[in-house]
Amino acid sequence: MHADWIAADWGTSNLRLWAIGPEGQVLTERASPDGMGKLTPDGFEPALLALVDDLLEPGRVTQVLICGMAGARQGWIEAPYTATPCPPASLSPILAKTSDPRLSVRILPGVSQCNPADVMRGEETQIAGLVASDPEFDGTLCLPGTHTKWVRVAGGQIMHFRTAMTGEMFALLSRQSVLRHSVISDDFSEAAFADGLAMSLSAPEGLLLDLFSIRPASLLNNTPPEAARARLSGLLIGSELAATRDYWQDLPVVVIGDAALSTRYVDALTRAGATARSSEHPALALNGLIAAHAHLSKELT
Amino acid sequence: MHADWIAADWGTSNLRLWAIGPEGQVLTERASPDGMGKLTPDGFEPALLALVDDLLEPGRVTQVLICGMAGARQGWIEAPYTATPCPPASLSPILAKTSDPRLSVRILPGVSQCNPADVMRGEETQIAGLVASDPEFDGTLCLPGTHTKWVRVAGGQIMHFRTAMTGEMFALLSRQSVLRHSVISDDFSEAAFADGLAMSLSAPEGLLLDLFSIRPASLLNNTPPEAARARLSGLLIGSELAATRDYWQDLPVVVIGDAALSTRYVDALTRAGATARSSEHPALALNGLIAAHAHLSKELT
Repeated sequence: MHADWIAADWGTSNLRLWAIGPEGQVLTERASPDGMGKLTPDGFEPALLALVDDLLEPGRVTQVLICGMAGARQGWIEAPYTATPCPPASLSPILAKTSDPRLSVRILPGVSQCNPADVMRGEETQIAGLVASDPEFDGTLCLPGTHTKWVRVAGGQIMHFRTAMTGEMFALLSRQSVLRHSVISDDFSEAAFADGLAMSLSAPEGLLLDLFSIRPASLLNNTPPEAARARLSGLLIGSELAATRDYWQDLPVVVIGDAALSTRYVDALTRAGATARSSEHPALALNGLIAAHAHLSKELT
Repeated sequence: MHADWIAADWGTSNLRLWAIGPEGQVLTERASPDGMGKLTPDGFEPALLALVDDLLEPGRVTQVLICGMAGARQGWIEAPYTATPCPPASLSPILAKTSDPRLSVRILPGVSQCNPADVMRGEETQIAGLVASDPEFDGTLCLPGTHTKWVRVAGGQIMHFRTAMTGEMFALLSRQSVLRHSVISDDFSEAAFADGLAMSLSAPEGLLLDLFSIRPASLLNNTPPEAARARLSGLLIGSELAATRDYWQDLPVVVIGDAALSTRYVDALTRAGATARSSEHPALALNGLIAAHAHLSKELT
């Protein structure tokens, strides 16, 4: 089985790729833990070959199109950012140096914004996937994760965006701060989440005090850990929503990402009064890579 | 040289103590890294004896009065919190079990507040030291550190207080978050600090976005690390000041603590329009222990 071309989403922690057949069908999907974070520039080609060697046809050059952190400054080769506003499916990729003659590798750029300064790398391709499925989308995309992206999309373009460090903050506070003693739980109290959310939304300036307060509440009132954990999440997401009001107050929001986290964000947005839903489109990164490949093929022919 | 009694400030990371002579003079000051965080309950007496053995008079019982984390639940013995409002120099200490007949050890409680839930342990003794020097103080004490305390003091009492996680947040973000790449510097840009402070003070709801923004500013605009570091500090302290306005807006503020950090806070408060100064009183923990000992001696006789 040989690939017509290969689509790859190369993040900080993982590499995920798809071999695409001549009729555009997905022949196989493969993944490895060889993320950008573990590799030096000369480690990328071997990491790629380890997954695709048998998919390459001898004597023929196979195109590989990559999105994500492989194009960061610390990645395979830097694919400089394209500035907003921009159409996410037609960004110009950078050719990466390879020594195997069967490979031709291109890496898609991320998207940057001057003022306020902001960057994304990888998310633009998911957005391209959504726009490919829903070209008329006019509203906000919310991509929760370590660094949550809030992206205004209209006319098939990324107009402007902001990033919130909510996910990373939750991880640091719940695992490494004084709060870690209070929030160890696999359960989650919806009521405590709603309380924290409402508190942050109505008085977002109190964040650094309200966060600490989780610890004495557990010392003095024996607040159960599932409530403390949910309160921490509610306070942080409430603070994020207070900061991103322009993105959701008068615009429909589609949330893209991990199912559990998307549900949490849709719930929070709905409680805040927004019109929000999870994206019903699967495989957005793959679909974005397919859209980018189609654009590129048109340009190259 | 034998101590009349011994004053000890036993924190999470260190033990610091003073041998007091019969006329109240400090005979010697000693310290060790045997903080509460490194000890199990049966390790406290040996850690104390390692520092004071030669200060104890054979055949006589020497009083030791301790403040700080030695009285936490994970400490030598729990000294339960006293609720606000309370006079910090006359809290009732708890007797700790000892096996050496030359020792009689008491641990001072921390102070708690029901609503909003909050706790302090150790700071109350520094406050007792300040109140001993300035009994008429009517205003706010700010004790910056890992967890900054904002304390309303009047009539010799702790009326109410709040804790901000500013210091711990700065440490986590500057050492362990995505921002760590941008903020490594021994220098500090006063202008960037003032910018971050003003931004957080005027729009505190933007914190989770403004913090992230430090990273793309360094990627896109090559913001120097001393500016990024100062901006991080300014954003966090600005957020803290926005949250504690009731404590500084119409009240004089005295800042207590490490000299460099106190200067930073006095600067920030002054820029925000507050009347703030660093405490001119030295050795507050020692003076608080002396005041608590005097109160205790009166009670015991």
